[in-house]
Amino acid sequence: MLKAQYNARGPVPEASIEAVSFEKPVLDSGQVLIEVLAAPINPSDVLTLTGEYGMLPPLPAVGGNEGVGRVVEQGAGVDAPAVGQTVLLPVGCGTWASHVVASAGELVPLPNDADPQQLAMMTVNPPTASLLLSEFVDLAAGDWVIQNAANSGVGGYLIQLARLRGYKTVNVVRRESAVAAVEAEGADVVLVDGDDLRQRVLEATGGEMPRLAIDAVGGAATDRIAACLGEGGILVNYGAMSREPCQIAPLNLVFKDIQVKGFWLARWFQQASAEQKMKVFGEVAGLIAAGKLHARVAASFSLEQIKEAVAAAAAGEREGKVMVVPNRS
Amino acid sequence: MLKAQYNARGPVPEASIEAVSFEKPVLDSGQVLIEVLAAPINPSDVLTLTGEYGMLPPLPAVGGNEGVGRVVEQGAGVDAPAVGQTVLLPVGCGTWASHVVASAGELVPLPNDADPQQLAMMTVNPPTASLLLSEFVDLAAGDWVIQNAANSGVGGYLIQLARLRGYKTVNVVRRESAVAAVEAEGADVVLVDGDDLRQRVLEATGGEMPRLAIDAVGGAATDRIAACLGEGGILVNYGAMSREPCQIAPLNLVFKDIQVKGFWLARWFQQASAEQKMKVFGEVAGLIAAGKLHARVAASFSLEQIKEAVAAAAAGEREGKVMVVPNRS
Repeated sequence: MLKAQYNARGPVPEASIEAVSFEKPVLDSGQVLIEVLAAPINPSDVLTLTGEYGMLPPLPAVGGNEGVGRVVEQGAGVDAPAVGQTVLLPVGCGTWASHVVASAGELVPLPNDADPQQLAMMTVNPPTASLLLSEFVDLAAGDWVIQNAANSGVGGYLIQLARLRGYKTVNVVRRESAVAAVEAEGADVVLVDGDDLRQRVLEATGGEMPRLAIDAVGGAATDRIAACLGEGGILVNYGAMSREPCQIAPLNLVFKDIQVKGFWLARWFQQASAEQKMKVFGEVAGLIAAGKLHARVAASFSLEQIKEAVAAAAAGEREGKVMVVPNRS
Repeated sequence: MLKAQYNARGPVPEASIEAVSFEKPVLDSGQVLIEVLAAPINPSDVLTLTGEYGMLPPLPAVGGNEGVGRVVEQGAGVDAPAVGQTVLLPVGCGTWASHVVASAGELVPLPNDADPQQLAMMTVNPPTASLLLSEFVDLAAGDWVIQNAANSGVGGYLIQLARLRGYKTVNVVRRESAVAAVEAEGADVVLVDGDDLRQRVLEATGGEMPRLAIDAVGGAATDRIAACLGEGGILVNYGAMSREPCQIAPLNLVFKDIQVKGFWLARWFQQASAEQKMKVFGEVAGLIAAGKLHARVAASFSLEQIKEAVAAAAAGEREGKVMVVPNRS
């Protein structure tokens, strides 16, 4: 059995992590052994490896925050989930491993016939996209939303969820080569970022100004989408792909009454009620299992390739998520 | 009679403005003629001259947004205010003039024995400082507030009002030579801005983190005071002395849940009820007349010196407000 473990954090995210072998664990009563089917590498995983994330596990740590697996062995006293059942891995358990041990009681069963790679991405990006659309502005059908980093995992889910809810999206990307893929997600408008963005947005929306702007880039790109908002609009940042501080012109804050807020799924998760969580995860799990919500996969890697996988996830200009698939068939 | 009039807006604020003479106006019924005693040059006046402000009067226009004067002549049917009464000039009437005409009914009488230069500054900076302290965070006695541009007009009023309300202030200035004057306003802590600001603030407050940060500088200075806030804190921008966009690190937005908002007195004024306005202006007028709230005056100029006056107000490193005093005794 293998796990992708690291002993140090630093600017090169793949520097310390490597696949190390471990003995098949002895199961306690109530535990099950799970074979991991798929686990994504999210931007938050890369920031955890570099030490830039908002919470960091003690070292040494196994990488990976979410994923799905299949039960392969039950400990004493376990009736369910059955051997062969697809399950959601407990969040934060170190999912970049061939196998993980979990308490049977904390496992959420998932449809065995759905694509495990799609299910493996359900706990981080889709709830983020869903909550970005619901927690900040009380949007109505027909309202416009603008986002940058539209070619990202969250960006793609946001386009699909907005369409399902009747909102229209302006999607900003950083390169022409990303336009077609974002259009294919169901985007209403896709524009390449640039200084005249506001004018092009107004032309595309027929003069309607979005009430919500969603930023995962930072730097001057933040202000370019803030400038597209109508008076009193809200900009929500959830990432920093440019690695620069968000910029926002005082005239947008003062004269246009734009507010800037941040969103962090981990904080929402700490503060939300069990019912709120159930509602959000239930919605996205159902849509994913039904094939109505999906993400593109750029490449998948084995655990032995973990350094390449992390480097690929950390690089820009991807066309989808990088996946760890420990037990290839 | 003289007025400081301009016919064009552009990057050099004093370029077009000049003192032009006009005939003594004939008063309509219900009007009074007012001799202007004092009118300040606020940052918003400079931005109006450069064309960067959020609302701009049609050209040609007379400069000046606030001030006080003394009634020198009553039109037909006017009983009050009496000749000799000190009055607040109507906001936005073009106060950089030797005389203005106003409807008697819209004039607010002010104490004749108070310093007219102090009264002349009451409608813009003191309500801004008062509302910055009350509109965004529900502060309690003993709470810390941090502001930059602490050596500004608003900054000085904010220190005095915070002290009257029992709040403690950390005041950030851009040069050592400004420290003593800000301490003399009643500041609890005065620090020169720099990269280690957060550490010095924590040392000065004994580890307590402010819940409200007030920014009038922009650029990297915004993020330096945002970084001093506790989790969930609010940063309010009301100016851009650096002429740069506000910067805020995504980690402060996302992981620390800092919110960034703007404040514009003109919008508050449009939206507030008559009672809310009365409460704010009544408080500051009373404190100014009683000598409990004051601003430093760096220099005063005649109308003939209006270009020098505007240039002095637009320059950095002032030690107080620049005043226009049209009718020197």
